[in-house]
Amino acid sequence: MSKKRKNRKTGLPPGTLIYTGDAQTDNSNVVVIQYNETSISEHILRGGDECPLGQEDKVTWYDVKGINNVKMIERIGQLFQIHPLALEDVLNTQQRPKWEDYQNGIFLIVRSQRTGSETLDITTEQVAFFFSKNFIITFQEDEEDLFHSIRDRLHQGLGKLRQKGVDYLAYTLLDYIVDNYFIILDKTEESIENLENKILNDFKSTTRNEIYNLKRQQSEIRRAVLPLREVIGRFAREDGKFVEQSNLVYIRDLYDHLTQIAEMIESQRDMLQNLNDLFNAEQSIRANHVMKVLTIVSSIFIPLTFIVGVYGMNFDNLPELHFQNGYFAVWILMIFIAILQLIYFRIKKWL
Amino acid sequence: MSKKRKNRKTGLPPGTLIYTGDAQTDNSNVVVIQYNETSISEHILRGGDECPLGQEDKVTWYDVKGINNVKMIERIGQLFQIHPLALEDVLNTQQRPKWEDYQNGIFLIVRSQRTGSETLDITTEQVAFFFSKNFIITFQEDEEDLFHSIRDRLHQGLGKLRQKGVDYLAYTLLDYIVDNYFIILDKTEESIENLENKILNDFKSTTRNEIYNLKRQQSEIRRAVLPLREVIGRFAREDGKFVEQSNLVYIRDLYDHLTQIAEMIESQRDMLQNLNDLFNAEQSIRANHVMKVLTIVSSIFIPLTFIVGVYGMNFDNLPELHFQNGYFAVWILMIFIAILQLIYFRIKKWL
Amino acid sequence: MSKKRKNRKTGLPPGTLIYTGDAQTDNSNVVVIQYNETSISEHILRGGDECPLGQEDKVTWYDVKGINNVKMIERIGQLFQIHPLALEDVLNTQQRPKWEDYQNGIFLIVRSQRTGSETLDITTEQVAFFFSKNFIITFQEDEEDLFHSIRDRLHQGLGKLRQKGVDYLAYTLLDYIVDNYFIILDKTEESIENLENKILNDFKSTTRNEIYNLKRQQSEIRRAVLPLREVIGRFAREDGKFVEQSNLVYIRDLYDHLTQIAEMIESQRDMLQNLNDLFNAEQSIRANHVMKVLTIVSSIFIPLTFIVGVYGMNFDNLPELHFQNGYFAVWILMIFIAILQLIYFRIKKWL
Amino acid sequence: MSKKRKNRKTGLPPGTLIYTGDAQTDNSNVVVIQYNETSISEHILRGGDECPLGQEDKVTWYDVKGINNVKMIERIGQLFQIHPLALEDVLNTQQRPKWEDYQNGIFLIVRSQRTGSETLDITTEQVAFFFSKNFIITFQEDEEDLFHSIRDRLHQGLGKLRQKGVDYLAYTLLDYIVDNYFIILDKTEESIENLENKILNDFKSTTRNEIYNLKRQQSEIRRAVLPLREVIGRFAREDGKFVEQSNLVYIRDLYDHLTQIAEMIESQRDMLQNLNDLFNAEQSIRANHVMKVLTIVSSIFIPLTFIVGVYGMNFDNLPELHFQNGYFAVWILMIFIAILQLIYFRIKKWL
Amino acid sequence: MSKKRKNRKTGLPPGTLIYTGDAQTDNSNVVVIQYNETSISEHILRGGDECPLGQEDKVTWYDVKGINNVKMIERIGQLFQIHPLALEDVLNTQQRPKWEDYQNGIFLIVRSQRTGSETLDITTEQVAFFFSKNFIITFQEDEEDLFHSIRDRLHQGLGKLRQKGVDYLAYTLLDYIVDNYFIILDKTEESIENLENKILNDFKSTTRNEIYNLKRQQSEIRRAVLPLREVIGRFAREDGKFVEQSNLVYIRDLYDHLTQIAEMIESQRDMLQNLNDLFNAEQSIRANHVMKVLTIVSSIFIPLTFIVGVYGMNFDNLPELHFQNGYFAVWILMIFIAILQLIYFRIKKWL
Repeated sequence: MSKKRKNRKTGLPPGTLIYTGDAQTDNSNVVVIQYNETSISEHILRGGDECPLGQEDKVTWYDVKGINNVKMIERIGQLFQIHPLALEDVLNTQQRPKWEDYQNGIFLIVRSQRTGSETLDITTEQVAFFFSKNFIITFQEDEEDLFHSIRDRLHQGLGKLRQKGVDYLAYTLLDYIVDNYFIILDKTEESIENLENKILNDFKSTTRNEIYNLKRQQSEIRRAVLPLREVIGRFAREDGKFVEQSNLVYIRDLYDHLTQIAEMIESQRDMLQNLNDLFNAEQSIRANHVMKVLTIVSSIFIPLTFIVGVYGMNFDNLPELHFQNGYFAVWILMIFIAILQLIYFRIKKWL
Repeated sequence: MSKKRKNRKTGLPPGTLIYTGDAQTDNSNVVVIQYNETSISEHILRGGDECPLGQEDKVTWYDVKGINNVKMIERIGQLFQIHPLALEDVLNTQQRPKWEDYQNGIFLIVRSQRTGSETLDITTEQVAFFFSKNFIITFQEDEEDLFHSIRDRLHQGLGKLRQKGVDYLAYTLLDYIVDNYFIILDKTEESIENLENKILNDFKSTTRNEIYNLKRQQSEIRRAVLPLREVIGRFAREDGKFVEQSNLVYIRDLYDHLTQIAEMIESQRDMLQNLNDLFNAEQSIRANHVMKVLTIVSSIFIPLTFIVGVYGMNFDNLPELHFQNGYFAVWILMIFIAILQLIYFRIKKWL
Repeated sequence: MSKKRKNRKTGLPPGTLIYTGDAQTDNSNVVVIQYNETSISEHILRGGDECPLGQEDKVTWYDVKGINNVKMIERIGQLFQIHPLALEDVLNTQQRPKWEDYQNGIFLIVRSQRTGSETLDITTEQVAFFFSKNFIITFQEDEEDLFHSIRDRLHQGLGKLRQKGVDYLAYTLLDYIVDNYFIILDKTEESIENLENKILNDFKSTTRNEIYNLKRQQSEIRRAVLPLREVIGRFAREDGKFVEQSNLVYIRDLYDHLTQIAEMIESQRDMLQNLNDLFNAEQSIRANHVMKVLTIVSSIFIPLTFIVGVYGMNFDNLPELHFQNGYFAVWILMIFIAILQLIYFRIKKWL
Repeated sequence: MSKKRKNRKTGLPPGTLIYTGDAQTDNSNVVVIQYNETSISEHILRGGDECPLGQEDKVTWYDVKGINNVKMIERIGQLFQIHPLALEDVLNTQQRPKWEDYQNGIFLIVRSQRTGSETLDITTEQVAFFFSKNFIITFQEDEEDLFHSIRDRLHQGLGKLRQKGVDYLAYTLLDYIVDNYFIILDKTEESIENLENKILNDFKSTTRNEIYNLKRQQSEIRRAVLPLREVIGRFAREDGKFVEQSNLVYIRDLYDHLTQIAEMIESQRDMLQNLNDLFNAEQSIRANHVMKVLTIVSSIFIPLTFIVGVYGMNFDNLPELHFQNGYFAVWILMIFIAILQLIYFRIKKWL
Repeated sequence: MSKKRKNRKTGLPPGTLIYTGDAQTDNSNVVVIQYNETSISEHILRGGDECPLGQEDKVTWYDVKGINNVKMIERIGQLFQIHPLALEDVLNTQQRPKWEDYQNGIFLIVRSQRTGSETLDITTEQVAFFFSKNFIITFQEDEEDLFHSIRDRLHQGLGKLRQKGVDYLAYTLLDYIVDNYFIILDKTEESIENLENKILNDFKSTTRNEIYNLKRQQSEIRRAVLPLREVIGRFAREDGKFVEQSNLVYIRDLYDHLTQIAEMIESQRDMLQNLNDLFNAEQSIRANHVMKVLTIVSSIFIPLTFIVGVYGMNFDNLPELHFQNGYFAVWILMIFIAILQLIYFRIKKWL
């Protein structure tokens, strides 16, 4: 949210490649992994290196980490004949999640969100996929290694990953991104419960700002998830050009997860709204309490002060002042009035 | 809601079987019932026992109670060739209700909710069904016996249950789960009426928290019911592979019930919102009342206190003090002012 | 709303006939009317009487008034081969309006609501219809005679009723039920206008409760009408098995009326929400007024009381006390201060 | 809104013709215009006159102004074979806008709304159309001449009106009705801007009622426009029986206008809600201001009054009273306290 | 919003050409550009000049800047056989964005919005397009040159613009208009962040008006964008009469951008609502604080003032007055009471 989009290009011809992200330095590199069921190899390409082509009988995964090296992206685009509009979208890091079915491959853009282990700081990153029959290219916005656990799994040969094709790898990568949303939402739910607890047991007016911030965060997550779900829904209806029929059940499962995530988000939205209402009600209950204290104290003492004022007057002829027990009578009167008022307030349940 | 989902697996290859529920000990067992119109048999399998296969001319119901014995679940999965993703969903107790049509059977997951007989404590449990032509497997998350009344009915041979096939049994089990929602909603409605009564007749500020809690509960029920309805809707459109045409009318009836439940939930949501508004209005009416008391007392006595203050001054030359009836004249003045104010407040309808 | 649904059956095999309504005594009876364009006959059946069958060339209308005689309902069900689920729905008086197309007839359930002539007390009743080519059965929940005016019309032979078939009779009965909703909504609109008037001209805090009650009533009506509209919509798309093509225009007209009713309900919902907002605004305008009175009185007299307090002090050396016109000077000062404040409040438009 | 619908018929057989409007006297008449490209004739029929039939080569427009002469309506209905349900709708002035395609013509009902030239008083009127290949009948609820400008245009032979058929005349009449909604909405927008101005610059609590009234009016307009749009949408999909293909572009244009009107209404609804929020915020900002004044005055003078009270005590032994400069010291103390408080309030930005 | 639509025509025959915009003077002109891949020519037509026709092998772009010269528009309309309704829409500057597929070309109307470089002042302008196989006409409401950067690009021959046909030029122009919305939304987001900052750190009651204004502006943008998206969506489904198949990917990309813009608008709407809630909460937190100050000061000093009042009474027999240390005892009592109250307020967390 705080990212300024000042460098969004406007007025330039469509198809012009300009990097619109924040990263300044260029540590971007490409990890190339080639594997089949029996063998696996990996090498890292830096800026100037030549990019090896895929092999028929192997899955080749080009993992582009960091996209501020526009030249390199351009070269990859030409090598694999990626449509200029797709390349442009890779570099425009404000892109909405999308699915595009080109002749020579499927192109999709998703938004990955992760959270720190303790606090609820969300890191957002755009990840683009381009895959064809025997290769996949992933473009990660950040140089940080999002997919290292999957690379590990590939090396270890666990699960079905090495036995299946590009489509299953694409699914695995997307599944990893989707799983991260579950973690974020679980943390959000924890935060909501904390806030709820605070409002009910340890009311502070600053809690209002925390609710507000959570709401903003929530709406940011929502903005990333809903189009992602559309994209995966489109994926699940793929007609089999690049995805094997038997693997569609996995994509559908992924879609179900995103539906569940979307429902959790809606439900949390509701909860936050309720929390907001609860805060406001608490706030006005407290205001009411403050006013009751004021009213009780004032209602009791203001009339009494009037009475003692009466007998502070200096009239020559003020007969009560000369009564033997005048002073004590006044006290009795005042105590009586105070008690009457206390009874009234008790009946009104203000005490 | 209070269940933490800490053990949700992330970064593991899809298809890995891990139990994500809360239960610690393993008392899980499988009740196997085989019946047709004339005979019925039942035995209970513990962890290590071998699982008997179904028979052509009988309905076999494997009722798996408790799912924390992952090994056993796995063995059942292999025996009946359940898809790994389905098995994974059985164990992931945070699963969204779903319907999946596999080649060899229909798999569905629903969320059962029950309430205690007195209070409105909702117990949520995930129940998975896998059924084919002549057998059904139910996976209950809790070991507690959800379906005992249906087992009783089977033994007694009441109704059409024993004369019909697996599809009708599946319907009966789902119908039982759906009926429980009616009970919950009736109790919720009672709670709403109690709260309404409290707000109008016995206002307490803590009622706000009760409304809030009911809202949360409501939204939890909603989250379970809406996808369940989808699932049953999908069931009702089954193309007859595993469900007899003449039984579809029952499934449609079930779907109608869920539609009614969904409408009741929406209507209760509305009521809770109205209750909330009513509470806030009551609250501000009361605040207003408190302020009126303060205003009336202050408006009457503050000016009077000023007057008696005037004649408490010690000026050498303060002529009124020496008037014979000065004191009494002041009293008359003050009573007159007070009466004027009372009339004013009466006109304003503050009294 | 106040009806408790304690006797809703749960855990019983589906198809079990149990009466779930409130009525205790059994005054239920069946009015059988047989008519064609030239002749009409009517007799009343009590509990044990035998039920006459329909005739080919006549329309036979079995009007079952009161449904707490489960035996009788069951016998009728067997006689006319009504599906057990349909019969169950007849007895379950909490049923959602529904349309079911059975082989041998059309079954539909609607919810009739009527209001007293003076106040807005709504009586709700479930009415079930089962009709085939030459007979119709109506099941009224209450024994009170809902349809007497239509029976009169039949006897008098007015309109097209006697010339047309079962479908037109069904339409006439439903039309009568729908017309009652117009009456209810007109009364609701009157109530809304009364409340509006009260808020603007004769504000009382109890008006809040009246708005709340109207809202509840509104939502009850809505809950009956929206599914009823669905049912009639389904009726209007009937494929001509039991309804003549030329009569469909009447059903469509009925559907249009229900659409209008639904829109009126939505619009009244809106109005009630606006009324609610208006009430809250009025309430806070009034609170504001109370506070202004308090502030004006306090702001004027508290400083003055301080001044007279100053000259009530008993210092040996307090020179002003000995000035010849000290007392009068103080009065002038105080009047000056009060006038200044009044001018300030006038500028602020508080006076 | 204030129109009572007391005379809505209920319990009468469908098809009974009863006038449900307000008009008491009968000044209704029928203007018959016959025209083609070269000639035009017009005559006015009163109650008893005979109605001339249409001619093959001319367009005949029967403009029925005022519908409280039920007999005449009935005669027209018989003459042109209008379906009884359609006739009934003509007379029921509470009818929802509708489109009905009868064998012998198209029947449609719309709601016309006009506003006075200065204020925003909306006059609502139901207009029914029945048109076939070579004639059109319009039923205006009010006797006032809604369509005189179109009749003028016909006489003058301007535009394409005289060259085209019945369908184009129907379009022209509807277009005129739709254009009136633009005028109403422009006036509403003006009113909204006035209210906005009042709230921000000249706050009065009665503005609340004006917002409320505008909201009601808005919702009345909305209730007329949305079904009208449906009707025109249905018109635009006419299959060419009564409308020439080349004229459909005009109807579509009309539909676009109604879409724009519907969007303007939604946007004004939004604005009115925002205005409402703005009013409430202003109201509470003002309440807050009142309270600040009270708090500042009280906080400063109540403690000072206490201090002067202390030295007004009559203790025999109260040493300060005998200090030479006690009085002046007390003044200095009090001024110091007051200044401290003023600084505090200034820091708090209350001053 | 402030533009009055007084001159909207009503009651005129449809198809009458009247300019409904604000511009008074006529500086309108037409820039005619003809280009293919190798050559480009441009000339400017003033009011009376003759309009050159397009050439088969070139793209001709007629850029009509300023539309208050109705005669010229009419002549262009006749020259290119534009449907009268389309021409009418060109001149009616309040037109809703629309898409119309005429036999001889595609006509579309969009709403362009731009913002100043510093502040968020939005300039709205209606732009109409009419294009066929080899020419395009653009009608800009304002004479200011919206498309100069694209004309520059054409002259420079950058990108694919010169190599492609009319459809790509139309896309480029629309893309430019859409890009401007991104700039507006980025600025809006900045404004929202500023307001958020103000509320949390530098609260002023006037911020309320700024939120309100932003909301209005937002709703104006929304009103322009949502139908624009519909229009482009319709464009993207063009069946290839006037758009090459291979260029549809660009239009789809444009549609995706508009979807993203629509989502950003919805999200900003949400944020503004949250901001509004935040403001109100802040406001009431502050009111509460004011009241606490009042309550604390009053609760402490009003009872103390009563006590000193007691010993200011002039009773002959008031024993305490004659105690040696009476005065000091009273002070101790009062300090004790004040401390007790401070402790109470501290426990309540009011201090």
